[in-house]
Amino acid sequence: MRRRRAVVGVMGAGEGASAGAVALAVALGECSSARGWVLLSGGRPVGVMAATSRGAARVEGHLVVGVVPTGGNGDDRPTTADVDLALFTAMGSARNVINVLSADVVVVCGGGGPGTASEAAHALKANRPLILLAVPPLWHDFFCSPGEGVESASDVDACCRLIEARLRMP
Amino acid sequence: MRRRRAVVGVMGAGEGASAGAVALAVALGECSSARGWVLLSGGRPVGVMAATSRGAARVEGHLVVGVVPTGGNGDDRPTTADVDLALFTAMGSARNVINVLSADVVVVCGGGGPGTASEAAHALKANRPLILLAVPPLWHDFFCSPGEGVESASDVDACCRLIEARLRMP
Amino acid sequence: MRRRRAVVGVMGAGEGASAGAVALAVALGECSSARGWVLLSGGRPVGVMAATSRGAARVEGHLVVGVVPTGGNGDDRPTTADVDLALFTAMGSARNVINVLSADVVVVCGGGGPGTASEAAHALKANRPLILLAVPPLWHDFFCSPGEGVESASDVDACCRLIEARLRMP
Amino acid sequence: MRRRRAVVGVMGAGEGASAGAVALAVALGECSSARGWVLLSGGRPVGVMAATSRGAARVEGHLVVGVVPTGGNGDDRPTTADVDLALFTAMGSARNVINVLSADVVVVCGGGGPGTASEAAHALKANRPLILLAVPPLWHDFFCSPGEGVESASDVDACCRLIEARLRMP
Repeated sequence: MRRRRAVVGVMGAGEGASAGAVALAVALGECSSARGWVLLSGGRPVGVMAATSRGAARVEGHLVVGVVPTGGNGDDRPTTADVDLALFTAMGSARNVINVLSADVVVVCGGGGPGTASEAAHALKANRPLILLAVPPLWHDFFCSPGEGVESASDVDACCRLIEARLRMP
Repeated sequence: MRRRRAVVGVMGAGEGASAGAVALAVALGECSSARGWVLLSGGRPVGVMAATSRGAARVEGHLVVGVVPTGGNGDDRPTTADVDLALFTAMGSARNVINVLSADVVVVCGGGGPGTASEAAHALKANRPLILLAVPPLWHDFFCSPGEGVESASDVDACCRLIEARLRMP
Repeated sequence: MRRRRAVVGVMGAGEGASAGAVALAVALGECSSARGWVLLSGGRPVGVMAATSRGAARVEGHLVVGVVPTGGNGDDRPTTADVDLALFTAMGSARNVINVLSADVVVVCGGGGPGTASEAAHALKANRPLILLAVPPLWHDFFCSPGEGVESASDVDACCRLIEARLRMP
Repeated sequence: MRRRRAVVGVMGAGEGASAGAVALAVALGECSSARGWVLLSGGRPVGVMAATSRGAARVEGHLVVGVVPTGGNGDDRPTTADVDLALFTAMGSARNVINVLSADVVVVCGGGGPGTASEAAHALKANRPLILLAVPPLWHDFFCSPGEGVESASDVDACCRLIEARLRMP
């Protein structure tokens, strides 16, 4: 079978994202496109989703995907401008499951609210590799305790090395 | 409008549920039916779901609902015997969102695995009242930090009083 | 295993339902409750959904279920008054799949719009018994051609006899 | 906002696709990629989905997307080899809704079974432009009767002209 490009899912805060999380998300997006990975997020035009898409779209050859909670009718198409492909689900938070199932590796960037927490939990449930990038200590404690194969990184370079190592596993 | 019976959603571990969590779940199911509440769970025939349904079904007038991840065809109908009504979704973990949206109050009974964690997170995201019953300290710390209106109880009596108080709010 | 009550799913037009379809839906709801069946519909307060729920709620011992497309927050809880239990999905038309999977027999009452057509199609896809009650000839032609086990009835008595026969099959 | 590439969704029979439908699907895929459109299908490695993806993948610059009903774990990743990007939903037929919502224009290629019928119905429900390519007369009669804006084509050239016209509308 032809090899598909690897898909990296980046999850994090929407409206309430910190400046630090946003900066990391931009750099992670750039790094993903530079390595030829597809960058997937929740696609809304705010926070970590918008930032990581913006970073990814800066690099030639990018493929930036947004899996959006709304249905995409008329004005109901609020996606970040930097998404190359929007998947409209009209499923609200149930689309969080699709986000993690469609990613070969899931990165939680900077923690986040309960939506992001649900994505980390769904990643564990579905046995997707989960990398916690610069999350609060409580996130580290909570998701490393039930989960196997959860890894942590404090900067984008280390995170990208962990993603690469994961993608090389069978 | 005719008042519908209140719906209490009880979430918790499946295959790996502890004996303590199972005992609490049985008692919580009984208590819910005795107060006239509909008891809703994930409906699979294991762990907290099965136990709380069994407890609820012991009390006259019960209505025990299971929202099941499978599609309900042929042998694919594994629900706990004590469910009065099974909703078949064929949606895997996306049904976790339906569980919490359909409950007036969500109780996490004894903690659990990542599936249960996703339900707690979805409850916070959807602004459903969330009660943590006898969960590990880490669960308490994690879900009380982002969430408003999260409450804790260490026994079933206290939990039922918290549910009652919540249901009286407008 | 304890036998659950049979679930009859009644699907049909919402806003644009004809007076004839509404009258049939009321009678079908009454008939379902009188025979001890759970009556399930899409739960919105219009058309065939509202009418069949109203009919079912008239009969002692009824259990009327609505599987609603919205999420059930605040004012976002538009369900027919006659629903005993509302399942909130926040999944829009994807809840149509849950409607048919959760029914032991699916009845399309009087035809309908594309939402109803999708439910008939999903019923065929999922091998749920499908009964077409007083549908336009084109509906009969379209859904009987691909489908096996699709049956037709022109009045509620005949429809209920078909449901009974279906429920007796293993 | 940066313009995203248009997305054309091609729906049709899976296992039971006719040779004629498969040939049309290949040509429609090629035509879509040649015009710079993203080609989206249900992504399974059979029938119209596989054929249209194969045709699209032949043309330089293609982007071929499959929205798959399964969850993508281990052996549970049956997608056509020609998909550049697979979205894993684990939602069975509920993914049919995502297929049509994510397409700017939906084409039903050669008719199909009830799954395809549900997609045509969901497209109408969601007000997505729907083009019927070489469908049986009964499909034409059924979906043109409730639907506004449904168009028909008997060959791929005519179909692509209809798609172009639709994509030029605001």
